[in-house]
Amino acid sequence: MMTYWIDITGTFMFAMSGALAAWDKKMYHDLFGVFFTGFITAIGGGTLRDVTLGVHPIAWVKDAYYILAISAAVLLTILFRKQLQQFRRSLFLFDTIGIGFYTILGVEKSLRFGVNPLAAVILGMMSAIFGGVIRDMMVNEIPLIFSRQIYATACLAGGILFVVLRHLGIAENVNEIVSIIAVISIRLASLKNGWSLPLLRRNN
Amino acid sequence: MMTYWIDITGTFMFAMSGALAAWDKKMYHDLFGVFFTGFITAIGGGTLRDVTLGVHPIAWVKDAYYILAISAAVLLTILFRKQLQQFRRSLFLFDTIGIGFYTILGVEKSLRFGVNPLAAVILGMMSAIFGGVIRDMMVNEIPLIFSRQIYATACLAGGILFVVLRHLGIAENVNEIVSIIAVISIRLASLKNGWSLPLLRRNN
Amino acid sequence: MMTYWIDITGTFMFAMSGALAAWDKKMYHDLFGVFFTGFITAIGGGTLRDVTLGVHPIAWVKDAYYILAISAAVLLTILFRKQLQQFRRSLFLFDTIGIGFYTILGVEKSLRFGVNPLAAVILGMMSAIFGGVIRDMMVNEIPLIFSRQIYATACLAGGILFVVLRHLGIAENVNEIVSIIAVISIRLASLKNGWSLPLLRRNN
Repeated sequence: MMTYWIDITGTFMFAMSGALAAWDKKMYHDLFGVFFTGFITAIGGGTLRDVTLGVHPIAWVKDAYYILAISAAVLLTILFRKQLQQFRRSLFLFDTIGIGFYTILGVEKSLRFGVNPLAAVILGMMSAIFGGVIRDMMVNEIPLIFSRQIYATACLAGGILFVVLRHLGIAENVNEIVSIIAVISIRLASLKNGWSLPLLRRNN
Repeated sequence: MMTYWIDITGTFMFAMSGALAAWDKKMYHDLFGVFFTGFITAIGGGTLRDVTLGVHPIAWVKDAYYILAISAAVLLTILFRKQLQQFRRSLFLFDTIGIGFYTILGVEKSLRFGVNPLAAVILGMMSAIFGGVIRDMMVNEIPLIFSRQIYATACLAGGILFVVLRHLGIAENVNEIVSIIAVISIRLASLKNGWSLPLLRRNN
Repeated sequence: MMTYWIDITGTFMFAMSGALAAWDKKMYHDLFGVFFTGFITAIGGGTLRDVTLGVHPIAWVKDAYYILAISAAVLLTILFRKQLQQFRRSLFLFDTIGIGFYTILGVEKSLRFGVNPLAAVILGMMSAIFGGVIRDMMVNEIPLIFSRQIYATACLAGGILFVVLRHLGIAENVNEIVSIIAVISIRLASLKNGWSLPLLRRNN
């Protein structure tokens, strides 16, 4: 039940981030463009995860509240776009929190379906970032998965932490909270300190 | 049975439109390029719908007549390409009719598998336009889903009409015909009158 | 068992080719970029095939050795990148051999799941080349499936040969070897002789 509301809230937040991104591109300033970008951003990651796992029906296909949440997010974004501009900082924070939740929920779901821990971490990461990757592709017109590498690395690190703590027998709900906070902290700290992954050519 | 022949005919028409599009690009003027573009255009939408629904086996995977229809369409396009140029108007009409059928068949199939009505409308729209979206991406080298917004909006409108009339208890076959005609009419009228979706920045 | 080790070896080789390709692009010179390109290159084709077939669980999702093989390939590529440059010819040969094996294994797997022979040939080809297609898209930033047409045509030819020989009652293991060698030979011969598919505009 808790998981369900986190999922609906995350869907809403992701749809808003997609609609806002479409907004910044002149060519997408029609209703369909804004709705579709919001929709793909919101459902892309979970759909990829569930199709890879072979788990059906997919949440938004079964339960109409997902599409209603997306529609509400898109409408609110269109109506309150000026006000939302002032909250970009908060929106970024929500996005980061959403990524944290989605990663760990994705890892848990994958493990529940008998996936090996390494694949579970990758699927958790993908379910968290794939929607944003497609959004960036649609809005920037070139595939740029790699501009999100710190994003992805924070998810991978949190996912690995979750799998390790689980293996060590840490209680599931404690582990969830610790791992979600880990994802969020790594992402925030890396932005604050300008961290990036080690470049590999330096000593070449 | 009727549905099967509509599907085979639609597959043939979509493959022809893909092969013609590949034709206009110099770089795709080899047999594989033309065949592959025709193939993806023809099977893209239905495959995305069925994979999202988790419905297997997918039609073209089980039944060889789909690939035979695609191969025939590609060969005929290559042999009669000059003559086909004169029929572009008719081909456009066939394409529009095909979109109408595919949308409503897609909505019906989705509802039959227990999908919620909102998701059924979106899946119906996607099954109708996704092949064309990939075709455009391959041929134009940039993702341009949004150049098809009126296309997509006509499908969404027809799909919503179908779901509403169904809810009101209209007989299925009457509803099918009315909704298919709605998709086709909206598309044709929007082209004739230069309709576009409301741009959202105007009053910004 | 034999098939399993071929698959793991192929996964390793494809991951290495992906990591090397990422290496040549300055923007991907971070750990995540190199790992992710290797991962997608290695699992892309088989995942597309299995999702289209509806066969679950997918190999890398169930069995952790696939991701371990990919990680090893990526690490070795990073550590021994200078030495590997001298072996590009050998790597190309390995790649070609891998394509041959993957095509025929993909056709066989598809037939085992009741797919029609034409679709089996297409799925075999896709499972062999799709990883490389995504790799090229990520590294070159434009979709360029068509630069691989000879690649794909060699796979299609070998796949068709396998299906025909099987229909004629040739023993399975003889047929496998003959068809794999056919894919490899066509690819090598076409490169040596600068073959390309017939362009279609010439007489237009």
